[in-house]
Amino acid sequence: MAQDKSTRRPRAETPKGFRDYFGAEVTERKAMLDKVAEVYHRYGFDPLETSAVETVEALGKFLPDVDRPNEGVFAWQDEDADWMALRYDLTAPLARVAAQYRNDLPSPYRRYAMGPVWRNEKPGPGRFRQFYQCDADTVGAPSVAADAEICAMLSDALETVGIPRGDYVVRVNNRKVLNGVMEVAGVLDPTDPDRFANERGIVLRAIDKIDRLGDAGVRALLGEGRKDESGDFTKGAGLGAEQAEVVMAFMAARRATGLETTARLRELVGPSTIGQEGVQELETIADLLDRQGYGPDRILIDPGVVRGLGYYTGPVFEAELTFEILDEKGRKRSFGSVAGGGRYDDLVKRFTGQSVPATGVSIGVDRLLAALQAKGRSTANTTGPVVVTVMDRDRMADYMAMVSDLRNAGIRAEVYLGNPKNFGNQLKYADKRASPIAVIQGGNEADKGTVILKDLILGAQIAQNATLEEWKDRPAQVEIPRADLVAQVRKMLDQ
Amino acid sequence: MAQDKSTRRPRAETPKGFRDYFGAEVTERKAMLDKVAEVYHRYGFDPLETSAVETVEALGKFLPDVDRPNEGVFAWQDEDADWMALRYDLTAPLARVAAQYRNDLPSPYRRYAMGPVWRNEKPGPGRFRQFYQCDADTVGAPSVAADAEICAMLSDALETVGIPRGDYVVRVNNRKVLNGVMEVAGVLDPTDPDRFANERGIVLRAIDKIDRLGDAGVRALLGEGRKDESGDFTKGAGLGAEQAEVVMAFMAARRATGLETTARLRELVGPSTIGQEGVQELETIADLLDRQGYGPDRILIDPGVVRGLGYYTGPVFEAELTFEILDEKGRKRSFGSVAGGGRYDDLVKRFTGQSVPATGVSIGVDRLLAALQAKGRSTANTTGPVVVTVMDRDRMADYMAMVSDLRNAGIRAEVYLGNPKNFGNQLKYADKRASPIAVIQGGNEADKGTVILKDLILGAQIAQNATLEEWKDRPAQVEIPRADLVAQVRKMLDQ
Repeated sequence: MAQDKSTRRPRAETPKGFRDYFGAEVTERKAMLDKVAEVYHRYGFDPLETSAVETVEALGKFLPDVDRPNEGVFAWQDEDADWMALRYDLTAPLARVAAQYRNDLPSPYRRYAMGPVWRNEKPGPGRFRQFYQCDADTVGAPSVAADAEICAMLSDALETVGIPRGDYVVRVNNRKVLNGVMEVAGVLDPTDPDRFANERGIVLRAIDKIDRLGDAGVRALLGEGRKDESGDFTKGAGLGAEQAEVVMAFMAARRATGLETTARLRELVGPSTIGQEGVQELETIADLLDRQGYGPDRILIDPGVVRGLGYYTGPVFEAELTFEILDEKGRKRSFGSVAGGGRYDDLVKRFTGQSVPATGVSIGVDRLLAALQAKGRSTANTTGPVVVTVMDRDRMADYMAMVSDLRNAGIRAEVYLGNPKNFGNQLKYADKRASPIAVIQGGNEADKGTVILKDLILGAQIAQNATLEEWKDRPAQVEIPRADLVAQVRKMLDQ
Repeated sequence: MAQDKSTRRPRAETPKGFRDYFGAEVTERKAMLDKVAEVYHRYGFDPLETSAVETVEALGKFLPDVDRPNEGVFAWQDEDADWMALRYDLTAPLARVAAQYRNDLPSPYRRYAMGPVWRNEKPGPGRFRQFYQCDADTVGAPSVAADAEICAMLSDALETVGIPRGDYVVRVNNRKVLNGVMEVAGVLDPTDPDRFANERGIVLRAIDKIDRLGDAGVRALLGEGRKDESGDFTKGAGLGAEQAEVVMAFMAARRATGLETTARLRELVGPSTIGQEGVQELETIADLLDRQGYGPDRILIDPGVVRGLGYYTGPVFEAELTFEILDEKGRKRSFGSVAGGGRYDDLVKRFTGQSVPATGVSIGVDRLLAALQAKGRSTANTTGPVVVTVMDRDRMADYMAMVSDLRNAGIRAEVYLGNPKNFGNQLKYADKRASPIAVIQGGNEADKGTVILKDLILGAQIAQNATLEEWKDRPAQVEIPRADLVAQVRKMLDQ
């Protein structure tokens, strides 16, 4: 017997960890990114679109020292046995471009990039293997004026997409200040960099938990360690009480104004050169922003911002949405971070050997879009098309002429192209399309030179099972001359 | 001696066969695709964005029957040893989606998709391994009204992006008519499908060469074969003289109007059922389009269109730009095809076993963009930002306040963020940025409360090497009160 061919059919499934975006999901994201791009453009940033594929060597983070260097990335070998991979962010390709075209690009180079990135990680709820990033970076500008500009632009971008002032704050910190504080606290031992890195990591993680653990919990983690409710013990950074006190003071250094905060930080970093430099940078940023009208209601010096401090080398910033939403358990919580960034060095140096200063920000596209949707501020038009139904398949040309008239007047419209026999199916179709109006012309109407317009938004709830006759009796429909089609549809849509 | 670390630097190179898009290259394509999307939207088509990654099984064309099934695609094995690949077009993912979501999607389903696709092919001049496609398809509509709609939409899309009527034509043919013609010519032997497929392939390729080889050359290829100038012999389809005559008549069947052309085709297909059906479809399409005002100046029944006939199952269409450009050798030639499509079956059947009719079109994004650029009709705004130069680094806040004022008035503006010491570098920078105006405020101007505006479009040619003093003497600059900055810049930009 021949093998059953049906068993060889491919499965119609989105690959695990990936997803498909339909209709409004595409247009809403596009509308948001278009607005962000408009702001970036106004700030003089130019778009850059690199290929999705890079050499693993250029991506750098993932070295080809194993047989399949696809840890974290999707990678394959090309015909020359070189390892290629899908980009995992938009910063690594920028570094490659900045090095490759360094003689042709303007310097400083302001660029923005929007597009998908890929991560070969275990997928989870809300965690996908392909997602959008939206980055803006300035390469080759050593001055913190570049960092201030990024913060102002981020603030403008958030307001432009629909987050009103007061519903967000951009917090600014500086990695150098923390280094200074730790130097003063005696944590920084220049002769043992490994130990320092380890202790700094513990301190950073402890600071990051202040919201959850409170002062006492963080103090314990800065010292010997902490036992949680379940009895598990987390080893601490081993700081003495006085050392811990300095770090705690750093976290609590935020004051009512940026100037007061930096004054307090200046006390805390004391004689540390790196610390003084960091405070000076924060002062300059606060002053530049203030002079442009970006006060602490929008952009704030806040030593409590830690995320990413380990990665960055100078100023860091994070945009937080401050309004509350209900989490999956129905509890109120602040929406939280939607963008972050900071100054990083040695990005281009990997390629050229020459250090190039850079600073930038990345917006979490899906999170910001979710925030807009949560607040009902997504502005994409998701109205379906006017649907012209087909009562008599021999008069398809008449129906197509109707949609043509509507479209030429700028009205989104389509004719039903399925099997027209079952009129109920046509109404179900219009319903599925979120159509605002159905146009109907049977033989009687054609003879009279009229069409029937049915208001589907009004009639949606009963349209599913009604027959044509029941349906024509509904009050939410009008019979009009064919010649008035465009004018009457426009009137109904404008209501 | 320690190994030289510099030898371990990664190369900063775009992967072979890929490219990067900068500034205007990104915005011009985006502007064009946005306009196309607007037309598709008005026709009731919904956007769909599938993931870039599909299972090789779902892509189908490339079966995993070899160790590395990456023939033509970029593929890799995931953690479960399943083969994954980057999509090579937008139709295969549509088929997967149409099968996967068949109970949720409206039927018929009109969708458009725009995005990159990837081909693992040998790169060549103008041939890249990642490029954009822009597709619109209707799935589940058996009527040729769907094909007519796609043709009308294609016509509208071309005019909307900037190809005027008269500079393009959409040609429509039908695979069934050719089948009918070949049946009448006696080429179609139902008892030997392999031989038929082979002969049909030769006939298709011969027809496709009419422009280059002329009547006699094509006749030779339809018959025994043809020897070219170099003496090489190409085996022909082996048709008799009378059979060849029928095929030649098919190609020459185009008449002044669609009705006359279909009347001639009806003669040629004689009693062939499939041929009659094909002619009837063309008549219906021509009638539907005519009734909507799409005459033969825009959409044309043309039996000479062959491309893709082998792949499609019914109507096929191709959009050709008819204006002339100069090729790489300076010869005039017609710009040629920028879009093509047609009706195809069995797309969804692979997954579900149920046949689903589908028709669609794909626009060659890069070719259409090249056409717009060749005709100077690309409309994206590529003006650079106003550049505020930095004469005194201690007054950065003043300069940033200037750009802030300009931006708040909607004017693209940026401050120079590089090392301000060398003023010449700032002017070179402004030049590289295609900046229309440079704003200058030194100590003297600051004391007087003025700024200098320099018209860079006027002064571009000498700006490269001039010193500040020479530069300030040029007539194309004005000194104005700081308070008039926005008004004066706007006035200069509007000139």
